[in-house]
Amino acid sequence: MPDFDPADPNFETRVRESFARQLVMETIGARLKRVAPGEVDIELPFRQDLTQQSGYLHAGIVTTIVDSACGYAAMTLTPPDADVLSIEFKINLVSPATGELFIARARVLRAGRNVTVCAGDVFTHRGAQEKLVATMLATMMNVHGRA
Amino acid sequence: MPDFDPADPNFETRVRESFARQLVMETIGARLKRVAPGEVDIELPFRQDLTQQSGYLHAGIVTTIVDSACGYAAMTLTPPDADVLSIEFKINLVSPATGELFIARARVLRAGRNVTVCAGDVFTHRGAQEKLVATMLATMMNVHGRA
Amino acid sequence: MPDFDPADPNFETRVRESFARQLVMETIGARLKRVAPGEVDIELPFRQDLTQQSGYLHAGIVTTIVDSACGYAAMTLTPPDADVLSIEFKINLVSPATGELFIARARVLRAGRNVTVCAGDVFTHRGAQEKLVATMLATMMNVHGRA
Amino acid sequence: MPDFDPADPNFETRVRESFARQLVMETIGARLKRVAPGEVDIELPFRQDLTQQSGYLHAGIVTTIVDSACGYAAMTLTPPDADVLSIEFKINLVSPATGELFIARARVLRAGRNVTVCAGDVFTHRGAQEKLVATMLATMMNVHGRA
Repeated sequence: MPDFDPADPNFETRVRESFARQLVMETIGARLKRVAPGEVDIELPFRQDLTQQSGYLHAGIVTTIVDSACGYAAMTLTPPDADVLSIEFKINLVSPATGELFIARARVLRAGRNVTVCAGDVFTHRGAQEKLVATMLATMMNVHGRA
Repeated sequence: MPDFDPADPNFETRVRESFARQLVMETIGARLKRVAPGEVDIELPFRQDLTQQSGYLHAGIVTTIVDSACGYAAMTLTPPDADVLSIEFKINLVSPATGELFIARARVLRAGRNVTVCAGDVFTHRGAQEKLVATMLATMMNVHGRA
Repeated sequence: MPDFDPADPNFETRVRESFARQLVMETIGARLKRVAPGEVDIELPFRQDLTQQSGYLHAGIVTTIVDSACGYAAMTLTPPDADVLSIEFKINLVSPATGELFIARARVLRAGRNVTVCAGDVFTHRGAQEKLVATMLATMMNVHGRA
Repeated sequence: MPDFDPADPNFETRVRESFARQLVMETIGARLKRVAPGEVDIELPFRQDLTQQSGYLHAGIVTTIVDSACGYAAMTLTPPDADVLSIEFKINLVSPATGELFIARARVLRAGRNVTVCAGDVFTHRGAQEKLVATMLATMMNVHGRA
């Protein structure tokens, strides 16, 4: 794991304020948890109104939390004036998204001036147990002079 | 484009019933439109409570509609007893998801017994104009004896 | 399909010269065919010394020709001083890579200043027949002041 | 990391014999190194005849070794009669593929009966230093009754 040195000492405030403006997060009930240099966790309690046909959390909702976690992991390392946009990502859905609570954990693999590459995993919590639900590889673009 | 011959003459009813059980679709306001052999369209009107920090539709919501469109395009070609699950997908977000209406259009590239490969695009409608917002390549698994 | 207007009228010469410097292309026997604004084709005759364990062309070699086709499709639209590097791509291998001749056809989906998104397909030729072998979605970076 | 219990005690012999039949590996000079349950390493010394236009190892060759490493990581866990084919993969190329030696390290994330999900990284060696060059997320299919 690389060791990151944030360009902006106020990165956590900046990330938390941006997350608060992601209205979809409130709509689905997602919460921003840990914010550290190059790492962000987002939590989502299961809700039946977010499911697909078999009662699992929809893959698009799993994607929503881990995409945001990747984007904010990237944003912890950008200068204060930069916004972050997802260019692309891939996700493998490795087990059914069942359980009471989901946690997306993202980390920066490589931070560049314009492009940041992140990896993120989604785990489900059932009591004390953790199980891998999905894994993402994402490419983020830093948009300077924007935030 | 391949020309597909559905294994189940009632594929459209089956797809529409399954879509109705995807509770997340009602939650976000998505509507199933065209259902044809190997092709499905899903529509989503813009809503502010589905946005990311800049007021665009969140990439995860863009993903949600095109993932479902890909899954149901696959399901048009499965036998009656098979359910379809997303194994993985990649999406490129090629322009900001702004506009009044989004339409996800998916098509099957290759239908196998167990695995179906689909492509999907999301367009935004602004009056008469269409613009590409995102493009997906997805791998779906047919789960036999399940639906 | 978008209609592209190249920034450099000598794009074809530039692409052909760069291709000639990709030494791996000579090593595997690949040939640059069509070069048009936003579109490039690369051809590869089957060779047994490029196969995997079942005698099919190795997925990495299929990837090699379609990645280069995507990169050069992007390069047709860059200014004269820009080089193109692959940031990332995904490929679905939809049928076994058998046959006498393979052709990779790439096209630009969206050309930006720094990032270009391309799609590419690989077809196999068996006499008069064409069959889809693989499909790629790729993200290319333009490196200015480099070529 | 999951702890894997191979279905076939002779998995290593089976993997090494299959690798020896991948003729492309000899063509490019790749060598199979470590074979463990759910994990495989493949090494490739740099060669100028495998480069792209700037003298880096071509992304398709980087892909070739990590795709094979992922496939063989999957094969360590299959029954004796199963062959493994790549369905799809995505790779992020995070730094230029320069250096004297490249090593691809793959591991199984989830092993299913028909589908196995793997992750793989490619590192470059420059003397004692290791640097991440690329990271892959791959989906493999087990073809039973084939090998």
